[in-house]
This record gives sequence, C-alpha cells and structure tokens, in this order.
Amino acid sequence: MNTPLILITNDDGYAATGIQALTRAVAPLGDIFVVAPDGARSGAACAITATTPVSFREIHHPAYPDSVRLFACSGTPVDCVKLAWDNILPRTPDLLLSGINHGDNASVSVHYSGTMGAVFEGCMKEIPSIGISLYLHRGQRYEEYPVSEDTLNAVASLCRRVIEQGLPQDVCLNINLPTAHVFRGWQVCRQARGRWSAEWASASNPHGLNAFWLTGHFTDLEPDAQDTDFSALRAGYASIVPVTIDMTAFEAMNQINELLRAR
Amino acid sequence: MNTPLILITNDDGYAATGIQALTRAVAPLGDIFVVAPDGARSGAACAITATTPVSFREIHHPAYPDSVRLFACSGTPVDCVKLAWDNILPRTPDLLLSGINHGDNASVSVHYSGTMGAVFEGCMKEIPSIGISLYLHRGQRYEEYPVSEDTLNAVASLCRRVIEQGLPQDVCLNINLPTAHVFRGWQVCRQARGRWSAEWASASNPHGLNAFWLTGHFTDLEPDAQDTDFSALRAGYASIVPVTIDMTAFEAMNQINELLRAR
Repeated sequence: MNTPLILITNDDGYAATGIQALTRAVAPLGDIFVVAPDGARSGAACAITATTPVSFREIHHPAYPDSVRLFACSGTPVDCVKLAWDNILPRTPDLLLSGINHGDNASVSVHYSGTMGAVFEGCMKEIPSIGISLYLHRGQRYEEYPVSEDTLNAVASLCRRVIEQGLPQDVCLNINLPTAHVFRGWQVCRQARGRWSAEWASASNPHGLNAFWLTGHFTDLEPDAQDTDFSALRAGYASIVPVTIDMTAFEAMNQINELLRAR
Repeated sequence: MNTPLILITNDDGYAATGIQALTRAVAPLGDIFVVAPDGARSGAACAITATTPVSFREIHHPAYPDSVRLFACSGTPVDCVKLAWDNILPRTPDLLLSGINHGDNASVSVHYSGTMGAVFEGCMKEIPSIGISLYLHRGQRYEEYPVSEDTLNAVASLCRRVIEQGLPQDVCLNINLPTAHVFRGWQVCRQARGRWSAEWASASNPHGLNAFWLTGHFTDLEPDAQDTDFSALRAGYASIVPVTIDMTAFEAMNQINELLRAR
C-alpha cells in the first residue's frame, strides 16, 4: 500500500492560521499536498470560476513542514480541488481535508461555506472528505481562541480512521470544533434548522449608491433540540454532521406529485 | 388576500433571454419584482459577497412588461435574494423563481448552480422557491432553442398551484426543461449520480503561469436508471427534483458512530 496521500484546502487562504495548524496536525499521517486559495474566499460555497482562467504556483511558507508540498491558487476552494485532481496530485488522494475554518459552518451555514464547498467537490470525486471549522463567538479571532492540541490530536485520530475505513458513498463530514482546551468528545448529529436575518448594513459612499455590507444575525430555530450540531457545540462537544451530496427530498415526492395532479 | 408577490432572479443577469421569458410567462399571476445580477454569475452556487459592499439600482428594460419592477444588483444570486428580502420587497413574497437558466442544472450540477443558490436562499427564508433551467446540448444556445410557449404555459400553471398550496418545509424545486415544442409532461424524480471530469483546458498566456480555463465532460453514472432527472430529460419530460436544504445524511449516522468507536 502506498503512503496515504492527503489533499488539504480551505477558504481562508494558505496564509491562514487554521489551515497551517491542521496541516501540522495531520502531517505524520501521510504525504501532504496543500492546494489552497491565495487569499480569502469566505462565503464562496461551491462556486467555480467560469469566466476567467485560474492559475496556481508552488510556494514555500515557514508555517508549513518542509515535507509538505504547498500550492497557491487564484480560484475558489472548489477550483483548488479540481485543479489538484487534474493537474497537481501524483495519485488519487486517500483523504481531503478543508479548514480549519475561522468560524463555524454549522446549521444552514453549510450552504454558504467555501470550506464545505471544497468538501462536496471531494465527495463528488469519491475522495473521503472532511470539512473542519472552529466555533467562535462573534468578535473572537482564531489566533486568540485557537484549536487546542488535545482537539487537534482527536482530529488527527479521526482522520487516520477515515483513511483506513473510508466514508459511505456520496457522504462527507461537516465537523465543527469548540475552543475548549480539553477535548470533551464527538457527537454525531444532524444539521440544525437556522436562519440568518438583518443581513445588510448600509455602506455610506460618495456616489449615492444603494450600497450595503453583508452582515447578519443567526437564529437557531431549534434551541431546545438535543441532536443538532449547535446543541453539541453548546454542550462543549465537537459536532460531526454526515452530509450527503444527494439533495433529493425523497419524503416530499408524493406531495409534489399530488400538487401536479391538482387543478 | 393580497395580490401574490413573486420575486424573480437568476444567475445569467437581468439581460438574459431566459429570465425575460420567465417573467413574461408568470406576469399575469401577481405583482412581479425582478432582482437579478447586473451580469453573468454562472457557477456562483450559494456564494455570498463577504469582502465588498453590494449595490443595486432600479432600471427599465424593454424586454420586461411595464408592470414589472426591475432591479440590477452587483452581487451574487444569493445576494439578490437577501437584498430583495431586507431592502426592496414591499411584503413577504408568495413565490421565488430563479431562471430560466441557459443550460441544465440536473444531477450534481445543482451544487455549482447560481440559479439553485438563489432557490436555496429563498427556501431558507421559507419562501416557496423554484429553480428553472433549460436542458441544452453542448454548443446549443438558448436563443436558438428557446423554451416553447407550451412549456412556459405549463410552468406558469405549476407556479399558480405552488402559490396556492405552498411547498413542504425546507423543500424547494429543481426543474429542468426540455427544448421540445410540445410539452410532454412533468416527472418528479431524484437527482442522478453524476461526475464532471477532464475539467481544465490550458490557457496559453505570455506570463508563463500555470493557467487553466474551467471546462469539463459530464458523465451520468446511472445511465440505465428510470427515476432520475437525466432519465426524465432524455425521455423528453420536464424533471422536477424536490430538494431539501437539510443536507444531513441520516442513514450514515450509525456508520459514523461505529467509525468513532474503532481504534
């Protein structure tokens, strides 16, 4: 068996603290290729670059172990995975990791997340794929509340098991980590129902435009649930939501067929 | 009861033929607000604009009925929905439509689609939301193979029923239309398993960069299935996939718990 090959990306760019910590934590597990955006791509979701070419270059950075191959890419997180797959990696990867994102991607934020966009792309390519994000409260910075060594060890241990055993077809993992020093444990849970509101702040400008900055307030619509990603995080656990790339709402099919039969 | 309010957006921009045809087709159903990107946003997925302000302005365009309010937005399709919701619409919309996209969004393309990104956003805001795309073969242009009047009538009829009856919680619709002149009917189906490959074409450039254009070849991994969006389209039907914004892979939870118990 070859040494395991691990592809790592993110949406905060290769210079972010989170991807560097993740890379160092899993470096002992195999050959590591980091193919990450050259800057911030927060909120990129599964976006692809359709109207301009995308470029990449191999670079060196002191925060990465010497054994790691590091590539900076001008595109989105999904572009990074697609470029790595077709043009960079020497063989099929045994694991794709995306993160550690500076901020959570729990509940419906999974849809906006560039971190998770890369994970969905890996899953579509049948690579066992895991997105990892850090649950920070508003105003907290990763550098002040980094992922603890104890938690990074638990992540590396989980990665080792996923390399050995794989993941179910069309399923990837959305992991959110707490900031606690001591790792309390994993909870496998479902995506909480949630909603963003009050999402725009007026941007004063000299041109008289209707211009706005995206912001917003998140509401957990199931604050009393015990089985969601947010309930796990509130209790101090690391949440694991198994996520499917088959978005079909099978249980709604009958109702839609009835709707079609209505006059 | 108020006149129904319909919000329309897309990812090809307000000047695209598809959104104009859709707007004219549903204009008799209610008050119409079009809030669409000011240019192409293909492949935008659920991307949001996180690092710059987003602006919008009301405009007039001869392809839209006089009764329609039309707004051009500098952001992504999801930004359009968020801006409309917070800053443009006079009341809660009864229906969100996105499209008609120039090209299909069947199978896993649902993940990259800016058309469907806007639909997921509407669904998160509990608006009954429908994405509509046209299944074109490679090299075909919408203007040469437009959606037929017969098909547009069927779309408008479906929209009327969704306004009256709503959609299940957290479920939206991903519709793909064939180009046939005569509308053969709807098929409620699931998302086909599929894969994009050979996704990059080298971009010659004077700077010696590793630069590539995104392209690719799509493979339907279930060519013999009878219940997928692509099987419906191949048979000449319009496909309706009910899509859930809850991406939890419930059936994989036990397996992930077993993985965690492994050493």
